Amino acid sequence: MQPPIPFRKGHGTQNDFVLLPDLADALELTESRVRALCDRRMGLGADGVLRVVPSEVDADTWFMDYRNADGSIAEMCGNGVRVFARYLVDAGLVKRGGFVIGTRAGDRRVEVHDDDTVTVHMGAVRVFGESSATVQNMLFPGVAVDVGNPHLGCQLPEGSTVDVLDLTAQPGYDRALFPNGVNVEFIQELGPDAIRMRVHERGVGETRSCGTGTVAAVKSWLHSKNRTTGSATVDVPGGQVSVVITDDGSTLTGPAEFVAEGTLSSQWWTAHR
Amino acid sequence: MQPPIPFRKGHGTQNDFVLLPDLADALELTESRVRALCDRRMGLGADGVLRVVPSEVDADTWFMDYRNADGSIAEMCGNGVRVFARYLVDAGLVKRGGFVIGTRAGDRRVEVHDDDTVTVHMGAVRVFGESSATVQNMLFPGVAVDVGNPHLGCQLPEGSTVDVLDLTAQPGYDRALFPNGVNVEFIQELGPDAIRMRVHERGVGETRSCGTGTVAAVKSWLHSKNRTTGSATVDVPGGQVSVVITDDGSTLTGPAEFVAEGTLSSQWWTAHR
Repeated sequence: MQPPIPFRKGHGTQNDFVLLPDLADALELTESRVRALCDRRMGLGADGVLRVVPSEVDADTWFMDYRNADGSIAEMCGNGVRVFARYLVDAGLVKRGGFVIGTRAGDRRVEVHDDDTVTVHMGAVRVFGESSATVQNMLFPGVAVDVGNPHLGCQLPEGSTVDVLDLTAQPGYDRALFPNGVNVEFIQELGPDAIRMRVHERGVGETRSCGTGTVAAVKSWLHSKNRTTGSATVDVPGGQVSVVITDDGSTLTGPAEFVAEGTLSSQWWTAHR
Repeated sequence: MQPPIPFRKGHGTQNDFVLLPDLADALELTESRVRALCDRRMGLGADGVLRVVPSEVDADTWFMDYRNADGSIAEMCGNGVRVFARYLVDAGLVKRGGFVIGTRAGDRRVEVHDDDTVTVHMGAVRVFGESSATVQNMLFPGVAVDVGNPHLGCQLPEGSTVDVLDLTAQPGYDRALFPNGVNVEFIQELGPDAIRMRVHERGVGETRSCGTGTVAAVKSWLHSKNRTTGSATVDVPGGQVSVVITDDGSTLTGPAEFVAEGTLSSQWWTAHR
């Protein structure tokens, strides 16, 4: 009989994950098991699964095998990698401080700080156009930003609040500029180095947080001030992160919280093969 | 520091629960902790919490301290009590077979069978009127049924399927007959002793299962055949249960599944006091 499978449940600004330590790379993690695990009634419930396996490239590195809730394979997740990094330190697999995590989007440098917040190096961020989004017949001018995936960062007029937007439907966008869809951020300035945002993720809907979205939001907000580099705190519905944009890269710093740990029922695991 | 809190996550026909064994009745389970536990992103996620405590009335009985996801106190839950009963047997607190569980709605007799399904004695069921529900301008005649809480069981015309109903909005109902709202069941006959149903729970919306709703559905289906007693299997979106209605009571038999067990993070528990 299948021995019980260890798991941990955690979240980064309320983007939540089931983490499966699989240090021997032996777990048979099928698509249907990922879907069942992420199902919020018959499983544990999560936005995705983070399997911890040794890197095939570098014996000193751990690889983040990230799966979406629908069972599909995903490349990277700026909130998930924080939870993954904190787990490696918490479980004694890596020393606290700076190290590298392998992902399908390449190696990511991270730092796990003394207060358990985590900084992730997110790579280059590039503005590739100006465009606009429509929400309930209102037009919001925005900036197209590439953070490995496509974003449209829309700065709200001064004095407006993101609270009043109805993001239940897909915002309208330019399908010529974004042929594969787009994540849309609505940005409200709070001060000289602080913004708030809400995000509509492509194929998902509004979420409480989107890691690459916070980086795109800061980039587009800086762009609206004719700046290319800078930093800001970003309040999202699920919490707060900090973003720094430099000429050749960006970092995202934020919390990584653990909720619970334990084992999956063997009977349940066997039933959902 | 708070020692880690043990938990189990389980579901009955996809009505899901966080079960907290609190055998010494020492856990400080505040409203805000219940809400955080049931939150599907920052907590474990569940429809409710089942705290296992000794009965204050009878030393041989365990009491089900049931809380809704919003933190409020609830009386009974036909799906939750199955998970609770199976836990008592699984944890060795009670011998497999028949026993009594204390609830705020009074003692409930249960039987945990060899295949881990559980029968719950649900008490008397009473028809108290005929009425109707409206969904998108379509009128569905129905029967008002009292199972401790109010229900309106609407039999669909022969050849119709419950699949096509749009239950995203509250169905219309007679507010004079149901001053405190009503749970509405839509019933499709599958055979001489089998029905399917979908349910709109008052204050919640459509759910994958509702224990008292399945009992009310069978009662109203029998009523439509001029019968007062009988039995049927009931297919709900979350699985299948069986209901028996007698002259002076009713039973609900169905699965109780465990997904995982472990401990809640002490840091998380402390943060959500």
